Amino acid sequence: MSLVKVEFSEKVGIITLNNTQKLNALSAQLVDDIIEALDNFQKQKIHIIILRAPEGSKVWSAGHDVKELPSKMRDPLSYYDSLEVLLRAVEEYPGPVIAMVHGSVWGGACDLIMTCDMVIADKTANFAMTPAKLGVPYNSTGILHFMNRLPINIAKEMFFTAELVPAERALNVGIINHLVAEEELLSFTLNLAATISTRSMLSIAVIKEQFRVLSKAYAITPSAFERVQGMRRKVYDSHDYEEAITAFLEKRPANFKGE
Amino acid sequence: MSLVKVEFSEKVGIITLNNTQKLNALSAQLVDDIIEALDNFQKQKIHIIILRAPEGSKVWSAGHDVKELPSKMRDPLSYYDSLEVLLRAVEEYPGPVIAMVHGSVWGGACDLIMTCDMVIADKTANFAMTPAKLGVPYNSTGILHFMNRLPINIAKEMFFTAELVPAERALNVGIINHLVAEEELLSFTLNLAATISTRSMLSIAVIKEQFRVLSKAYAITPSAFERVQGMRRKVYDSHDYEEAITAFLEKRPANFKGE
Amino acid sequence: MSLVKVEFSEKVGIITLNNTQKLNALSAQLVDDIIEALDNFQKQKIHIIILRAPEGSKVWSAGHDVKELPSKMRDPLSYYDSLEVLLRAVEEYPGPVIAMVHGSVWGGACDLIMTCDMVIADKTANFAMTPAKLGVPYNSTGILHFMNRLPINIAKEMFFTAELVPAERALNVGIINHLVAEEELLSFTLNLAATISTRSMLSIAVIKEQFRVLSKAYAITPSAFERVQGMRRKVYDSHDYEEAITAFLEKRPANFKGE
Amino acid sequence: MSLVKVEFSEKVGIITLNNTQKLNALSAQLVDDIIEALDNFQKQKIHIIILRAPEGSKVWSAGHDVKELPSKMRDPLSYYDSLEVLLRAVEEYPGPVIAMVHGSVWGGACDLIMTCDMVIADKTANFAMTPAKLGVPYNSTGILHFMNRLPINIAKEMFFTAELVPAERALNVGIINHLVAEEELLSFTLNLAATISTRSMLSIAVIKEQFRVLSKAYAITPSAFERVQGMRRKVYDSHDYEEAITAFLEKRPANFKGE
Amino acid sequence: MSLVKVEFSEKVGIITLNNTQKLNALSAQLVDDIIEALDNFQKQKIHIIILRAPEGSKVWSAGHDVKELPSKMRDPLSYYDSLEVLLRAVEEYPGPVIAMVHGSVWGGACDLIMTCDMVIADKTANFAMTPAKLGVPYNSTGILHFMNRLPINIAKEMFFTAELVPAERALNVGIINHLVAEEELLSFTLNLAATISTRSMLSIAVIKEQFRVLSKAYAITPSAFERVQGMRRKVYDSHDYEEAITAFLEKRPANFKGE
Amino acid sequence: MSLVKVEFSEKVGIITLNNTQKLNALSAQLVDDIIEALDNFQKQKIHIIILRAPEGSKVWSAGHDVKELPSKMRDPLSYYDSLEVLLRAVEEYPGPVIAMVHGSVWGGACDLIMTCDMVIADKTANFAMTPAKLGVPYNSTGILHFMNRLPINIAKEMFFTAELVPAERALNVGIINHLVAEEELLSFTLNLAATISTRSMLSIAVIKEQFRVLSKAYAITPSAFERVQGMRRKVYDSHDYEEAITAFLEKRPANFKGE
Ligand code: NI
Ligand code: NI
Ligand code: NI
Repeated sequence: MSLVKVEFSEKVGIITLNNTQKLNALSAQLVDDIIEALDNFQKQKIHIIILRAPEGSKVWSAGHDVKELPSKMRDPLSYYDSLEVLLRAVEEYPGPVIAMVHGSVWGGACDLIMTCDMVIADKTANFAMTPAKLGVPYNSTGILHFMNRLPINIAKEMFFTAELVPAERALNVGIINHLVAEEELLSFTLNLAATISTRSMLSIAVIKEQFRVLSKAYAITPSAFERVQGMRRKVYDSHDYEEAITAFLEKRPANFKGE
Repeated sequence: MSLVKVEFSEKVGIITLNNTQKLNALSAQLVDDIIEALDNFQKQKIHIIILRAPEGSKVWSAGHDVKELPSKMRDPLSYYDSLEVLLRAVEEYPGPVIAMVHGSVWGGACDLIMTCDMVIADKTANFAMTPAKLGVPYNSTGILHFMNRLPINIAKEMFFTAELVPAERALNVGIINHLVAEEELLSFTLNLAATISTRSMLSIAVIKEQFRVLSKAYAITPSAFERVQGMRRKVYDSHDYEEAITAFLEKRPANFKGE
Repeated sequence: MSLVKVEFSEKVGIITLNNTQKLNALSAQLVDDIIEALDNFQKQKIHIIILRAPEGSKVWSAGHDVKELPSKMRDPLSYYDSLEVLLRAVEEYPGPVIAMVHGSVWGGACDLIMTCDMVIADKTANFAMTPAKLGVPYNSTGILHFMNRLPINIAKEMFFTAELVPAERALNVGIINHLVAEEELLSFTLNLAATISTRSMLSIAVIKEQFRVLSKAYAITPSAFERVQGMRRKVYDSHDYEEAITAFLEKRPANFKGE
Repeated sequence: MSLVKVEFSEKVGIITLNNTQKLNALSAQLVDDIIEALDNFQKQKIHIIILRAPEGSKVWSAGHDVKELPSKMRDPLSYYDSLEVLLRAVEEYPGPVIAMVHGSVWGGACDLIMTCDMVIADKTANFAMTPAKLGVPYNSTGILHFMNRLPINIAKEMFFTAELVPAERALNVGIINHLVAEEELLSFTLNLAATISTRSMLSIAVIKEQFRVLSKAYAITPSAFERVQGMRRKVYDSHDYEEAITAFLEKRPANFKGE
Repeated sequence: MSLVKVEFSEKVGIITLNNTQKLNALSAQLVDDIIEALDNFQKQKIHIIILRAPEGSKVWSAGHDVKELPSKMRDPLSYYDSLEVLLRAVEEYPGPVIAMVHGSVWGGACDLIMTCDMVIADKTANFAMTPAKLGVPYNSTGILHFMNRLPINIAKEMFFTAELVPAERALNVGIINHLVAEEELLSFTLNLAATISTRSMLSIAVIKEQFRVLSKAYAITPSAFERVQGMRRKVYDSHDYEEAITAFLEKRPANFKGE
Repeated sequence: MSLVKVEFSEKVGIITLNNTQKLNALSAQLVDDIIEALDNFQKQKIHIIILRAPEGSKVWSAGHDVKELPSKMRDPLSYYDSLEVLLRAVEEYPGPVIAMVHGSVWGGACDLIMTCDMVIADKTANFAMTPAKLGVPYNSTGILHFMNRLPINIAKEMFFTAELVPAERALNVGIINHLVAEEELLSFTLNLAATISTRSMLSIAVIKEQFRVLSKAYAITPSAFERVQGMRRKVYDSHDYEEAITAFLEKRPANFKGE
């Protein structure tokens, strides 16, 4: 059984993350189901995608399924890992992907939100970037998703504090495009999609691809990258990484020693 | 007869786009006249330029003169095309160019606004980025003008919807520097120019040039670029491009088929 | 005697710029003292730094000590110059550095603020970027500090006008993270630091380093850079540079001739 | 009927360009057949490819099929054009592709040779790079194939003179890996392939991909690229481009006017 | 006891790899001793380093100590691994490091040779690049060491065949600077060092640093790099990597399955 | 009176450096005369330039006029300095510039040779790169001219030893395109030019520009560049720089102290 619900009409497809008892954690299975839905929509020439949680969910998505993170000695955010594959699928979808957000968005789901082309939210929405809570060394492409949207000091604050950014502030700093009343969230988003659907989708597909290429154009040397990779490895080899994963699963705060 | 009006006093020059019956569309002739004005101001050592429409115009500029866009099979935004030459002239002017905006700014004129060093506007101002309405594959340097100013999700919204961004929102997202009352638009802009004119113009000229170089420093490989160029070519070779240009000239909505 | 005051408790260190009779100008000596404090905190494994002025100072810091700027024919912002060394020390500190700002921040101090990871300010705070007042050709890494935070038109306005940006606008455009009441400035900042101190400092240290590397990834060619350097040299070889430094020291406005 | 002959044994596949009456010109059909052969070999897990002409051919390949080049006003070396697709297929094949060369290699075939991972040749081999003879503005990725192998002055000589480089010189300047006697050409090449087939193909596939990525890492800005593209467009819009294509088909020297 | 022998006179220091019963394999201990020698020479202001094996050794160095390579699931060429640290120490030494080569140079030692500033060899010298024999996914900075010296087709041949390149060919393709008679190897190298020692060492130190920076300036995006890293991980997670290491230690050929 | 002699016939222009009593040192005046000649040839649509010394000169050019180098505290290779302007004029000439070399080529003239598109030489030719003899910190674009032609170890040897590379070796390592007999030097070069003149000059002009852009595409960050610039400044501020210039003018060896 699929963990997503899929609907569409004309050029607009809606994918609802539908595993609320697991807080829509982005497990390998949920990710597979989203990607399958995207693939099907692409075959059907659906031009615009809306990504949402079921009506009334308090949590839009809790992010990574922590049980699936690798134990010590392995990069937890490697290129072919499930969430990374999803983020690229969203970036490469040849039409706009709009996140419609009611409720909380944490960690990997926050990265997913930042990877969507636009974000429409209501006042219940809030956003937390949590790798520093889980002892995870984040990947550089993930950090770039934030740098393309936020002043660097705001992006750092999100990563360093791992605290929730409420909807109003999210609007001001640039995380979301429009903040609308709860009861208008769906109609506003559908209207936005309807407007886009009257435009040239050929033109939009190439422009989206140009944004993708240009937003990644932070050219660094292999040396710089291998150094960052070496530093990240020290983190996922550390006691603290192991401790944080364990603590999370035992539902207690991690006891970080800085080693 | 020139399509622009030119005034100056001391270090400040004012160029008024003066072809309101054509909604100040950026035709080859209007562009030539602006560039000629810039060249003359540069010779006279005018340090600061104000770019404006005549008082009371409802449209600051309608952007490209669609009649001048090439028909199918040719890149409509090539390096030596008229508007592109103008954008570079503004970027390379050795002093600040300030857009003073009352009224609507569409398409190529919106790109011009984003290329000016600063934008001062009143509440009548609004801004629409329209290539997806015209089926045009935009050029990458144009997209960068938006990425240097806006969170990427806001820039995408402008390109994907082609809808007007009203003045208040334009202030919040970073399109304009100051939103002032209609009756103070001119005096505020002149005051700003007067302040700048007391500063070291040598220092400002080099700093502007550094901003220019750094704002373009999105390094990509020739392979990546040739791929984007190949994708763009598919768009301007398409039925939809031809249809959109025709529809615009026939003043009817385009009927896009996605091919 | 040190020009800074140093305190700490657990994982949080506070460095107070303590040379208020010189308006905390970033003289070689003050810079040395800040760097020494940072070095000591790093040895003690202090994870979070707060940088502040003494309570009640009207000026947080006046920026460069103009008396120490080189006379004509020498680059005033060279890589091993005192302030540049400080900016790199802040960027390379392996934990967050938070600027806590009450009062005015001018010139080089404004660059320091932009280099800190986060900025918390009260309503007395304001910010001016003054090289165009001093005839100084700014360095490219300094300009990047602003481009990573501000829309390019706002950054240009700061550099071209050299005018003060008040606290409220500084919040809106992205210079500061939080604007808080004067009486809560310290407690708010300490709370923020306390939150961060419960997170994985290993994870934060690498993420900060990734932000540093990525925020500098504006790749340009040696040719482009040597050209910029040649242009900057013309400025510091000019009459106007000499005049501006002299005028500043004589406390009169500079008389710029554009040569 | 296929224009290539295909053989294989164990891990080594041989593709013979087999359209000698057309001098193995790289027509769309011949390219399709090579690509199909590569695809089949990849499915069969053939690890090493040898690309050759039939025994005794005086011309290995004559390069582009000039009849297929577009007439004026269109880029003759666009990303999705037949030969470009082939070059990428060779670069992306997950094992070494070895060109085994007896006879002459002209124009686009010379680019193909430079794109193969290794080149083994006998004394009859020679190489000419002919776009300046045909009035063609070459593409930047093609020029990079030469820059990764040759001192830039040698690469320029090939492009500017369009003259044949004989086998001995080709060995000295770095075009070919080994120059062997005619009668040993096949056995030498098969031995080389046999040696490679004892190595780790997983390791080789990734290393080849790293060479591909790094050899393309000539990062330039979109502005620089759009300028080059604009300059190239002036060439394929010119009289001389049209004249050269016509002259070639009429088997007479082109009469270039420089316009 | 140190595994290197150290001598010097005036400005020239000589480091002799002195663990011939282990074929000078670059074990962690040997690397530490070389780095210590470099550190001491730097403190003594020794300007030029000669790196050599003891007179008469048939093997200059056998490269990595395979016993020290990590077992499956871990990157064998990580940034802080022993050999990588050595290569950076050579690159960062503030004066020329000259490899003086008699005998065979394999694998990691071949990378060391390519990292030295110059290579002087006699006819017994030969060079093999062996990661494809050991199933190792090589690192990108290592590949760049070869690309800065060799035509890309020659570099690929070395990596794909893992065969020895004899001295004469090594001279022709650019691996070595001078090929001299065995009995003149030392005197020639000392003369070269003596010449350099009469030049400005300040000037040379900066020029060497510029070569280092520029030779690494292959700018790629974090996305491209993370993809390469993901592909490399598949290799060191594979059966074949494990098999090759085991086979090497059991002194039998590896049985690669391509998985 | 001009320091160059100028001739031309049809599409080929010849510029003879004609200040042999000063060994054709590239003084500001000689450079001006070469640039003027290039400008005139460009106006006359001369497509190919040959740069030579008068018949029989033992020195093709001695490089920088050392008397014109700045004294201490100033960058001796700044962007607008005379020789740098010449190198760019050669690179930007819209047709091939061929150096025809008989005799010795030193220092800045060696950089000029490397900047020419092709080099034809006879056996009397030799080449020395001398900044380390003069205590000069070289500029990065100059170093790139060598990296685009030579294996990095050969380029370093030239810079670190400042010794002459004789003609035969210059051919082997890639400095020169063809080594011909003395008596055929002119005829060979004219033949080469004649061949090129039958090709499409439009095509060649763009391809030359692409080579220029791509050969400079060594993208580095402003931080990396400012660091190199800071290091270079330490050199031209040093005792050794001053001493070397003085020693050269006094025709004695410099006494370097490394400070
Ligand atoms: Ni337009
Ligand atoms: Ni300052
Ligand atoms: Ni190895």
